Amino acid sequence: MTNPRACIIIIGNEILSGRTQDKNIQYLAIELNNIGIKLEEVRVIPDIEQTIIDTVNELRVKYDYVFTTGGIGPTHDDITSESMAKAFGVNIVCNPEALKILEDHYGAENVSDTRKKMAFVPEGAKLILNPASKAPGFIMGNVYVMAGVPYIMQAMFAGLKGELKGGKPTQTKSIVVMVGESFIAKGFEDIQKQYPEVEMGSYPFIKENKWGTTLVLRSTDEELLASAYQNLKEFLHSQNIETEEE
Amino acid sequence: MTNPRACIIIIGNEILSGRTQDKNIQYLAIELNNIGIKLEEVRVIPDIEQTIIDTVNELRVKYDYVFTTGGIGPTHDDITSESMAKAFGVNIVCNPEALKILEDHYGAENVSDTRKKMAFVPEGAKLILNPASKAPGFIMGNVYVMAGVPYIMQAMFAGLKGELKGGKPTQTKSIVVMVGESFIAKGFEDIQKQYPEVEMGSYPFIKENKWGTTLVLRSTDEELLASAYQNLKEFLHSQNIETEEE
Repeated sequence: MTNPRACIIIIGNEILSGRTQDKNIQYLAIELNNIGIKLEEVRVIPDIEQTIIDTVNELRVKYDYVFTTGGIGPTHDDITSESMAKAFGVNIVCNPEALKILEDHYGAENVSDTRKKMAFVPEGAKLILNPASKAPGFIMGNVYVMAGVPYIMQAMFAGLKGELKGGKPTQTKSIVVMVGESFIAKGFEDIQKQYPEVEMGSYPFIKENKWGTTLVLRSTDEELLASAYQNLKEFLHSQNIETEEE
Repeated sequence: MTNPRACIIIIGNEILSGRTQDKNIQYLAIELNNIGIKLEEVRVIPDIEQTIIDTVNELRVKYDYVFTTGGIGPTHDDITSESMAKAFGVNIVCNPEALKILEDHYGAENVSDTRKKMAFVPEGAKLILNPASKAPGFIMGNVYVMAGVPYIMQAMFAGLKGELKGGKPTQTKSIVVMVGESFIAKGFEDIQKQYPEVEMGSYPFIKENKWGTTLVLRSTDEELLASAYQNLKEFLHSQNIETEEE
C-alpha cells in the first residue's frame, strides 16, 4: 500500500513580498513524513479570494490531504474562511462551539463583532482546536485550515495529527563526503539503479572553502534502505572516499 | 502600467522531505519586488520529470517570468535541464560556451562525462553565468533556470537581474502596535476601503507574553502610500494606541 499524498497551500502576501521567512513548510514536511503521509507539493498564493477558491478546488481532488496555513484571523485581509466556504459551495456560519471557546477565553462581553468573525466557518466544518491562542481552525472534507503564525499552526497540528491516517513513516539515512558531487555521481547513480524504490538525492555544500556532498537515502522500507546504505558506503570506501554520518 | 508578474518553481525533494529549510523564496521575493516584478505564486515540486514538464508548461504561459531553482548539478537526481528541454520540445545539447567555462575552470583533462553533463542545456538556451561555482544556469523563453544552493542561486541572480524588465518597485511602510489584531481591525479595514490600491496586511506576533500586531502597507505609488500611512497613524493615535515604526 502506498502512503497517502498531501499538499500544503501557504496563503500569504507576506511570504510573496519577502517580508516573512516561511517556517511552516519545513515543519509540516517533517511532521507529515514522520506519520507516513507523503508531501508532494507546496503552493504559496496571495490573499485573493478567487485564487484561494481555484487552488483549493484543484488540489483537494488531486491529493488525499490538503493543509492550508494563513488568513483566519479577525482583520479584513483574513479571507480564508470565506473563500473556503465558497470553494465548497456552502454558507459561512457562526459555529456555536467556536463562539463558546472565544467567549470562555475573552469573556462574553468582550467578544466584539471583530472577534466574533473568528467563530465563522463554512457550514458543516469540524473545528481544529487552538491551544495556543484559542481561535480555532477547521476541517472541510480533506482540507485542513490552520493559522499562519508558526507557533499557533504547530499547536493546532499537534492536536490534529492523531486523527490523520498515514502509512509507513519514511526513514532517512545520510552520508557526508568531503568531495564534490562529480566524484561520486557515477557510482551513486549505479546504486540508485540497483535500488529504484529508494529515493536518492545528492546535495552539495561548501565548508571551510571545500566542497562536500551529502548523500541522502529515503524509503519506507527499512531493510531495503539499510541494504542500499551499506552498498553506498562500500562503494565510497572502495574509492578511498572518507565518509561520515550526518 | 501594471508590473510584470512572476512565479517561482522550487524543484527539490529536499524541501518536500523537510530536510532543507528553503531560503530561496524570500531572497527572490525581495529582489523581484525591488525591481518592480510582482511575485504572485510559488510552487515546490518533486524531482519528477513529468511534474517538472507540466508545471513549467502551465506557468510559463500564465506569468511574464518563471524562475526555477534546483536540479542542474551533475548527479542522477539533477533532471531539470532534461525536463526543461522536453517542456519546450527541443533537444538537450552540449553548449560550447558552457563547456569552455567548465574546461577553463577544471582544466580540459578534468572535465569528465559527469562534469560535462553540466554543459548540457536545451537547444537555443542562453546561459546564466555562475560566478560562484562556474556551472551555468540558462534561460529558455521566459523561464530562468538557476541552481538550488542559495549562494550559487544568488550569484546567478545578481548577474541576471539587470536584464529583467521590471516596473515600479513596491514600497513598504510598516507600523507596529502592541495590541492584538481585533483592537485595530475595524479602523484598519476602513482605511483599506479608502485606499483600495494600497495592499494592507495585519500580522500578529507575541513579544514578552503580549500580543502585538504589525500593520504593513504596500504600493508602487509613493504618494498614495504616504497618505495611507499618515491616515493610519492618525487613526491609531485617535484610539490612544501607541505606534512604532518597524
